Amino acid sequence: MTAENPVPITGLILAGGLGTRFWPLSRSQYPKQVLRLLGSESMIQATIERLLPRIPAERLVVVTNTAQAEVINLELRRKGWQDIRIILEPEGKNTAPAVGLAAVLLGAAEPTGLLAVFPADHFIGDQASLLAALDRGAEWAAAGYLVTFGIPPNHPETGYGYIKQGPPLDPAGTGFQAARFIEKPDASQARAFLDEGGYYWNSGIFLFRRDSLLEAFKRYLPEVYQGLARIQEGKAGPDFLAEVYRDFPNISLDHGIMEHAARVAVVPVEMGWNDVGTWGALQEIFPRDAQGNVLLGRILDRGSKGCTFFAQSRLVATIGLENIIVVDTQDATLICHRERVQEVKDLVAELHRRQMAESVQHPTVQRPWGHYTVMDEGPGYKVKQIEVAPGGRLSLQSHQHRAEHWVVVQGTARVTIAADITSVASNQSIFIPAKTAHRLENQESQPLRIIEVQTGPYLGEDDIQRLDDDYRRV
Amino acid sequence: MTAENPVPITGLILAGGLGTRFWPLSRSQYPKQVLRLLGSESMIQATIERLLPRIPAERLVVVTNTAQAEVINLELRRKGWQDIRIILEPEGKNTAPAVGLAAVLLGAAEPTGLLAVFPADHFIGDQASLLAALDRGAEWAAAGYLVTFGIPPNHPETGYGYIKQGPPLDPAGTGFQAARFIEKPDASQARAFLDEGGYYWNSGIFLFRRDSLLEAFKRYLPEVYQGLARIQEGKAGPDFLAEVYRDFPNISLDHGIMEHAARVAVVPVEMGWNDVGTWGALQEIFPRDAQGNVLLGRILDRGSKGCTFFAQSRLVATIGLENIIVVDTQDATLICHRERVQEVKDLVAELHRRQMAESVQHPTVQRPWGHYTVMDEGPGYKVKQIEVAPGGRLSLQSHQHRAEHWVVVQGTARVTIAADITSVASNQSIFIPAKTAHRLENQESQPLRIIEVQTGPYLGEDDIQRLDDDYRRV
Repeated sequence: MTAENPVPITGLILAGGLGTRFWPLSRSQYPKQVLRLLGSESMIQATIERLLPRIPAERLVVVTNTAQAEVINLELRRKGWQDIRIILEPEGKNTAPAVGLAAVLLGAAEPTGLLAVFPADHFIGDQASLLAALDRGAEWAAAGYLVTFGIPPNHPETGYGYIKQGPPLDPAGTGFQAARFIEKPDASQARAFLDEGGYYWNSGIFLFRRDSLLEAFKRYLPEVYQGLARIQEGKAGPDFLAEVYRDFPNISLDHGIMEHAARVAVVPVEMGWNDVGTWGALQEIFPRDAQGNVLLGRILDRGSKGCTFFAQSRLVATIGLENIIVVDTQDATLICHRERVQEVKDLVAELHRRQMAESVQHPTVQRPWGHYTVMDEGPGYKVKQIEVAPGGRLSLQSHQHRAEHWVVVQGTARVTIAADITSVASNQSIFIPAKTAHRLENQESQPLRIIEVQTGPYLGEDDIQRLDDDYRRV
Repeated sequence: MTAENPVPITGLILAGGLGTRFWPLSRSQYPKQVLRLLGSESMIQATIERLLPRIPAERLVVVTNTAQAEVINLELRRKGWQDIRIILEPEGKNTAPAVGLAAVLLGAAEPTGLLAVFPADHFIGDQASLLAALDRGAEWAAAGYLVTFGIPPNHPETGYGYIKQGPPLDPAGTGFQAARFIEKPDASQARAFLDEGGYYWNSGIFLFRRDSLLEAFKRYLPEVYQGLARIQEGKAGPDFLAEVYRDFPNISLDHGIMEHAARVAVVPVEMGWNDVGTWGALQEIFPRDAQGNVLLGRILDRGSKGCTFFAQSRLVATIGLENIIVVDTQDATLICHRERVQEVKDLVAELHRRQMAESVQHPTVQRPWGHYTVMDEGPGYKVKQIEVAPGGRLSLQSHQHRAEHWVVVQGTARVTIAADITSVASNQSIFIPAKTAHRLENQESQPLRIIEVQTGPYLGEDDIQRLDDDYRRV
């Protein structure tokens, strides 16, 4: 095939990660792949955007799990990608089951079609190099190789897995047999890999024929293969799927298949890649000032060195810090020595154990129709700022225990209460009694903003009966 | 006189400090002396409380300046001390003019009466020792000495001024002639003072006869003395006072008088004293954990050492920090290496230069009737949570540019709008149009809490016309 008419590739975007390492910006209900860490697009949006020139939206599939379906769906919808298919795992089981599930649910229409696998939450600075490497890899995949993509290391990194190259697959060296996979090495090993050459960082991007992949599952993960076969036989209703999935091992594609398979290739590619594995990664991706600091947000610093300061909205003032990472969000601040950034996940585990709300959710919650921010809570009341996007409409709903006062502060609201529909303009207010069906809607072309004061004996988000919903949440 | 009938002392509480070193907890409109840094009482409340057994409220005088009059007044009122006299300097001019002004404004009824001077913002752990030292000092003051109180150093502190003792005034050594005042020494000097003995930290507490003090002003600060004399002659209307004050030097009592005067005594006293000069002081006052940390508020730490973490309400999570001070408030966070804590004042100067709101005020603002918190601000609107104390009543007021929606979420409001008075219960709301006289009042025995949504083209706090006010702010 020519560059004008390349071989079709189906792209699997793996978006099931929890991203506990990016707390407090990530929360269990707001994982790393939906964060706007590196710009105005979320990680998953940027991942899809950079693939679109080579893989059209109708050939892209996002794999995630039910817990994260709503936020992922929202990220796609915001870019007009609501038609991109989403495959839901009943629970997160690492990459081997996720890729296997997608491979069988895609159907058997293209038994030798090419599947590529992309993490949804990595940074790639050089899109053109990525796409060119995919085309090089496609040749070896078509020839039956399980293809990995290897990043030539530029420093002795101990945070990545490595792939050692074997004999070249062609005289030009566009690909090599993969000789060996190596877990995260220690510092002296990493140094030796760099000096010796022929070692690559494992990018987590894969490319293979569908039949090569399933053959490898059959051979190296037979118990998963059998489960996948049962799913493919069409017995996979939601309950059945969950039941099959429960028995799957929690195993990565690397460990489960790549390390064992005979015909594995590595295609080298330099593309400004970073797995953005911890808060430390910002130091490698963003430009640093003369003192080696990365300052993002409202920061006032005096004489710090080698630091990363990330302030979401509040003011952070720093004096004389060295190698410290600060992440400031609406309701929580992390301050961590750079060398101990791996412990953020342990800290989040501790927050979960203590059932602290800051591990689960932000004060600002994204919804299909817009977002809301909890501004104040006290005995018997809660105050929210609610923003409804143009054309957005909340569900027709009622609450058993709470009444709501709405004051419109921007735009015009169309408000349904029982059988009445009212227009409520800026600087007007309206009262929603408990146990009454109501709906909030923005038919204007500008955002609608209201202040909602809830009062009542119980104010949990679960006191909601959805009678009708544009976003099928009934 | 006997202990049962001690010689009367008039106490001057100097409460004009700006406290920029305690940003972000202190703000220019919320100085150090009103902070609740060390417990449930503010610094000035604790200062007065510990003096009351020896100096009754009618003999206490608080000296501050007009900019801080309202917050200081509030701190006194909250303890039922609204009758304690407040003397207002037209502007802050350090301690010599402040003490001189109080000495002349107190009147000439007790020309040889004793005046004691106390900073409003120091920590003293041992009240009994302070009061006993005052009685010892009173004897020397009555004999015509300008008496200072010296703290025996327990470590080679470089942050305090020192006083070197001269010959003892009596065989028991209850007081010494002061041989010399020494500015903050360097480390080796401080070490030598500690080893040599006979040096004391200058506590900033003084005691003298009124006539001794004025005599010293006449001799050592003659230009201030002349100004004070003109004020004493009764020409001191507010404009006149400001005019006289403008020409006063910015000079401390130590530099202006004590260092030069002939008959100065130092009375040693161990009383758990700390001048609470920087955030570093918390480490000396509060108990430390096994790793030498002081943790105050909602802190989750992993393995930090020698740190001070102060979280006002939000969650602060820390990993692997050493000798770092963190101060987290509603709208700003300070993170500072302990050795550079003196630079906080420079940082605040920078905030002022940049006119950043975080240098001036907290989101929560104290008022005589209670307090309010700005929760949200956007184009054309502002949201406040307002709490009115039992019996509290806001001024009768009107706004030119803004309307207000009030939703009562706790208690019952008595609301005046134009000629109507309404009772608004919890879960009810009421609308206040622009340009309409209105008043909010809490006649119940529980706090009243309302959510106020302001709307209008201009929402500054200065859009207020006070028609009547219980707190004389009209």
